[in-house]
Amino acid sequence: MTKRIGYLGPKGTFTKLAVDAAFNGEDKHSFKTIPECIDAVNENMIDIGVVPLENAIEGTVQLTVDYLVHQVRLPIYAEIVVPIQQHLLVHSDFTGDLSEIEEIHSHSHAIAQCHQYIHKYIPWAGIKFTSSTGKAAEIVSGSDKYIAAIGNKLAAEEYGLAIYKENIHDYSNNHTRFAVLAKEKETVHIKHAVDTEKTSLLITLPSDYAGALHQVLSAFAWRKMNLSKIESRPMKTGLGNYFFIVDVNQPYDDVLFPSVKAELEALGCKVTILGTYPVYQLDI
Amino acid sequence: MTKRIGYLGPKGTFTKLAVDAAFNGEDKHSFKTIPECIDAVNENMIDIGVVPLENAIEGTVQLTVDYLVHQVRLPIYAEIVVPIQQHLLVHSDFTGDLSEIEEIHSHSHAIAQCHQYIHKYIPWAGIKFTSSTGKAAEIVSGSDKYIAAIGNKLAAEEYGLAIYKENIHDYSNNHTRFAVLAKEKETVHIKHAVDTEKTSLLITLPSDYAGALHQVLSAFAWRKMNLSKIESRPMKTGLGNYFFIVDVNQPYDDVLFPSVKAELEALGCKVTILGTYPVYQLDI
Repeated sequence: MTKRIGYLGPKGTFTKLAVDAAFNGEDKHSFKTIPECIDAVNENMIDIGVVPLENAIEGTVQLTVDYLVHQVRLPIYAEIVVPIQQHLLVHSDFTGDLSEIEEIHSHSHAIAQCHQYIHKYIPWAGIKFTSSTGKAAEIVSGSDKYIAAIGNKLAAEEYGLAIYKENIHDYSNNHTRFAVLAKEKETVHIKHAVDTEKTSLLITLPSDYAGALHQVLSAFAWRKMNLSKIESRPMKTGLGNYFFIVDVNQPYDDVLFPSVKAELEALGCKVTILGTYPVYQLDI
Repeated sequence: MTKRIGYLGPKGTFTKLAVDAAFNGEDKHSFKTIPECIDAVNENMIDIGVVPLENAIEGTVQLTVDYLVHQVRLPIYAEIVVPIQQHLLVHSDFTGDLSEIEEIHSHSHAIAQCHQYIHKYIPWAGIKFTSSTGKAAEIVSGSDKYIAAIGNKLAAEEYGLAIYKENIHDYSNNHTRFAVLAKEKETVHIKHAVDTEKTSLLITLPSDYAGALHQVLSAFAWRKMNLSKIESRPMKTGLGNYFFIVDVNQPYDDVLFPSVKAELEALGCKVTILGTYPVYQLDI
């Protein structure tokens, strides 16, 4: 049966690029917001949801994490890591050079990611913000003015634009991480080799006392369980309460993780496994 | 002398709301991106820059932190915390009811923050994304159609809109934190009472080994120095290298902090004080 895959739209965005690279020609649906996409998985309208987790252009990790923590607790069954490559896109009829470009259109995050390039090579151009990099490409494709968009390869293809200059982003090691959410693990088949395996935990501290976090990390440290990410976030219930998202660089097992969980619970923490899953680095 | 204050624009955004509440009638300048605003402080075009640090609508903490860490190392001299309150805004001539609203315009984060309200009360409305909440308000003010915007009080005032329904955001404890950057501490005068004092540190680990973070936190824990935030971020120089941003709930002093710094440096860490500063909670 064809699987239904939902992602954060619109066309020509990094999420779509990740979905196209990771999955074969399944039935793909674009959603307008992260909560809508997560809800759709939860309500069985789609089988798989792909939402940004970290350093995204079109979304924010905080919204994804908060929605998964507070509203809809779906397991993460895979993580997709995609390098962010921003290009300067122009109308396919454009034959001029940089000095003729009067306006640059893009999402504010993409503009910011190419700050140094713009500052150095096109400082005179007017900056026009759009709701997404895909939208910027659409505007350029429908214009006869000397304007450019900043976006990825897919945005150029979707809207028939020419890539005037490749890789104009300031940092070459910028990545976006996407969570693949589903109700059934068997649903998720990604057409690439697994890079590493990870387990993500949500840990709520009993109260905000000095050294609480240190005590929590002890449970991982003496077992030599390596953490690749730790992030504190305020609870929505009030100021001064925190939860932590911790990524452990190993798959869930039946000895170490249950022991950590039991110890932390004895300290008064609440521990939830958000997922244990493979990580796929896509070079697209 | 009148101080020149820069902030992330455009009109009617949360950053402007924070700047108006925090500072008297100084000379205020809107910037299009976070890096531009930080650069302007660094190049003495403005005296004070106000940029979002956490949970912002129009910006992202990661961009601010990354730019301060990698490009322009300006000290943080104050933090401003503003509650996020989203309202449903309509044209001042609108006299109908909810069922007549055909479209809702706003920034994607604001749409997401009001997801449950829209889902429950206006599910039929078409969602139109804009580059900011201020832009959405501008569109509604210039339209004669039955459309609404989601934005804050200031957006309503700036564009002469009516607030149809107050506080339609899903969570009442959402805040945006702003960093106040300047070259001279004396420049920063905020017209409110100080809530707490904080010190932010940037800690780079020597290598990615199990328990390294735990060891770092020990230096704070046994001194009973309470951390209110910890976040790991990948270095831009490659995968597998991390730095940590740590917020300590006390001002810098001449005994505890230098000792922590010396101990961590002996372990091979690099420690930078990003700032020691008062926090202002604005109830606007």
